[in-house]
Amino acid sequence: MNCEIIAVGTELLLGDIVNTNAQFLSQKLSSLGLDVYHQVVVGDNLGRLVEAIKLASSRSDIIITTGGLGPTDDDITKLGLAKALGVEMVLELNSLERIKSHFIGYGKPMPIINERQAYIPVGCKAVANDNGTAPGIIGEYGKKTYISLPGPPREMIPMFEEKIMPYLKQKSNYIIKSHTLKVIGIGESAIQECLGDIIIGQSNPTVALYAKDGEVQIRITAKTQDEGLAYERIKAVEKQIRSILGINIYGSDEDTLESVINSLLQDKNKTIAFAESCTGGLISSRFTDIPNASASYINGVVCYSNDAKINMLGVNKETLIKYGAVSMETAEEMALGIKKISNTDIGVSITGIAGPSGGSDTKPVGLCFIGLAIDDIVKTYSYIFNGNRRRIKWQASTKALDILRRTILDIEVK
Amino acid sequence: MNCEIIAVGTELLLGDIVNTNAQFLSQKLSSLGLDVYHQVVVGDNLGRLVEAIKLASSRSDIIITTGGLGPTDDDITKLGLAKALGVEMVLELNSLERIKSHFIGYGKPMPIINERQAYIPVGCKAVANDNGTAPGIIGEYGKKTYISLPGPPREMIPMFEEKIMPYLKQKSNYIIKSHTLKVIGIGESAIQECLGDIIIGQSNPTVALYAKDGEVQIRITAKTQDEGLAYERIKAVEKQIRSILGINIYGSDEDTLESVINSLLQDKNKTIAFAESCTGGLISSRFTDIPNASASYINGVVCYSNDAKINMLGVNKETLIKYGAVSMETAEEMALGIKKISNTDIGVSITGIAGPSGGSDTKPVGLCFIGLAIDDIVKTYSYIFNGNRRRIKWQASTKALDILRRTILDIEVK
Repeated sequence: MNCEIIAVGTELLLGDIVNTNAQFLSQKLSSLGLDVYHQVVVGDNLGRLVEAIKLASSRSDIIITTGGLGPTDDDITKLGLAKALGVEMVLELNSLERIKSHFIGYGKPMPIINERQAYIPVGCKAVANDNGTAPGIIGEYGKKTYISLPGPPREMIPMFEEKIMPYLKQKSNYIIKSHTLKVIGIGESAIQECLGDIIIGQSNPTVALYAKDGEVQIRITAKTQDEGLAYERIKAVEKQIRSILGINIYGSDEDTLESVINSLLQDKNKTIAFAESCTGGLISSRFTDIPNASASYINGVVCYSNDAKINMLGVNKETLIKYGAVSMETAEEMALGIKKISNTDIGVSITGIAGPSGGSDTKPVGLCFIGLAIDDIVKTYSYIFNGNRRRIKWQASTKALDILRRTILDIEVK
Repeated sequence: MNCEIIAVGTELLLGDIVNTNAQFLSQKLSSLGLDVYHQVVVGDNLGRLVEAIKLASSRSDIIITTGGLGPTDDDITKLGLAKALGVEMVLELNSLERIKSHFIGYGKPMPIINERQAYIPVGCKAVANDNGTAPGIIGEYGKKTYISLPGPPREMIPMFEEKIMPYLKQKSNYIIKSHTLKVIGIGESAIQECLGDIIIGQSNPTVALYAKDGEVQIRITAKTQDEGLAYERIKAVEKQIRSILGINIYGSDEDTLESVINSLLQDKNKTIAFAESCTGGLISSRFTDIPNASASYINGVVCYSNDAKINMLGVNKETLIKYGAVSMETAEEMALGIKKISNTDIGVSITGIAGPSGGSDTKPVGLCFIGLAIDDIVKTYSYIFNGNRRRIKWQASTKALDILRRTILDIEVK
């Protein structure tokens, strides 16, 4: 069974947005053992869309479109599908009711133009959209299957995962199982060198590396007809990799650095507070993205100004004058201060220069000091990160979190 | 002149990477006045690549490939191009010298397999790669132009900008200018209804809407042979749109909500501090993403626990007991508290239920109270946001920022 993904939208052809939908769908289809041989993008142009669907029908078994299901004039996907298939459009009453009730939820009447979204090609079934007004559709015509999904990822992804995946699972003879190990503290090239033979020597499971947001993910993928065999093969390779990378592997699959730390803190019954200068609240925001963060997270302070550092955290004015706000000494006092005022077991601090301005020869843009106070001990660490302001903030926050993780685990901080 | 982009690489079809090359090229081609009607992705498969190039030749004037120029067996783009064109491959000696000297730069001899990278289809010219070993190629056959670029963005982007852009500029007779208005506080459908005639009535410039991260962007695009005329046409349509949407348009082009607010605060010589509960530092982090945030941003507190609200912000224990942490009254005291302890002109607070747990019938997940204290006045607002935890955090932070913007501008908050 092979699939073709057709993304519809002039905004993609203008380069306004990147086609993350094609990536997401390709990953998921691959995990189902379904091959993707073509990804295609066409604009909001009926003629070219119809051509693209006809071409896909001639070479692919399953044709999945994304985008163009909105209520406006340039949303033409369902019409294009109907034309390519040579069928009429029909009003689907359940969808109409759902769209109306979506607006009632907001206390508004449905705008007339949204009625369009309830029309589908004859022979298709509507797929309810729990996160927006546009229903998706599934249609089987002869040996070909057509699936249309909304364009916005927050509507498309849950619809695909909850409603399309179970449907497509029945169509595949293979099981593809993946297991992802998440690594922090070693770069992609270094991992490649460490794991060389394991990566090259494997064909089933395969081992692939992906660098992402300052971490590296190692994906082990087995394709078999038997689920137990797939797990067995994956486990064997995982064991080899873990014996080499050890504690640099912080988690797997759905784990995030934040969720792993939150669990560690809960296991050890420790509470945490963050004092941030250069990261501007990013560490607190990342940490509180996890449900149940409040089990360990008590408090955060973003002390951008010197006054804030003095008044809120009790940093000594003399320290700021003598060593500067971006210094080992200030980081230390900030960590002790946030721990004290928040009455937590651990206090983490960060102060640095996120740029683009504010750097000097001795203290360049990207320089960051991280402090960690736990029980009666306080340690500080310094790093220089590269990139633009956002990237420096991100890397600094990741490093602070990893220092926290390693400290809780009582292992060496690199 | 219309262009087609063919990205070559099985890693794209597996969803291992996202096709940022297609986005980059589409943006650049559009800015040159060249239309992109198709983006296509094929894997490292010679037969399907040849088919894709033939199809592109039948419908597009300029065919640009990315990827597949490496030295290994699965790098097949040049061979595919030669087969599609019906020409032989030939060794290009200048390229061979460049590749050899690239390795000498690293103090290594050239591996034998890299010699392959110096072969190009007869009739093409090699384009030097200053950031890697793979040369690009340009070929003109009849009325069609073929360009092959390396896959890694750090090689592809400079090659395109420095060597391909100047070449393509000569081929375009048009200039395309775009201007984007950014709107907050009205949804996409409502804007579509307000602007109906302006959107439908325009063909040059065109007017298109994109919903993104809780905002709507309105892009006005003119295609002319004269730059002045393009600006004039855009200005006329912008004026019409502004007369309808007014202050809901917060900025344009490179503006962000945060940067606009920072400028407004600086203009009015006001300082700001944020007290966040449910958004967990996201507002501070967003605000400090802008360079020069420190001109107006003084301080932030993330008071997750009741103790933090009491100890750091001076919220009354009685208020928390009587009305709860998620209440109008708590939001009010938080806003006053953060303003006072930070000694700023404005204090903004937010308290709510980000979910997934913690909701009740009277206080559902998504309920948020926002407080704003300025001079001697404090106002509070309540909203219910939908979606998962991150989405609720994002929407709540956006709403708080927009309330701040409207308050500084002394206009009604909706």
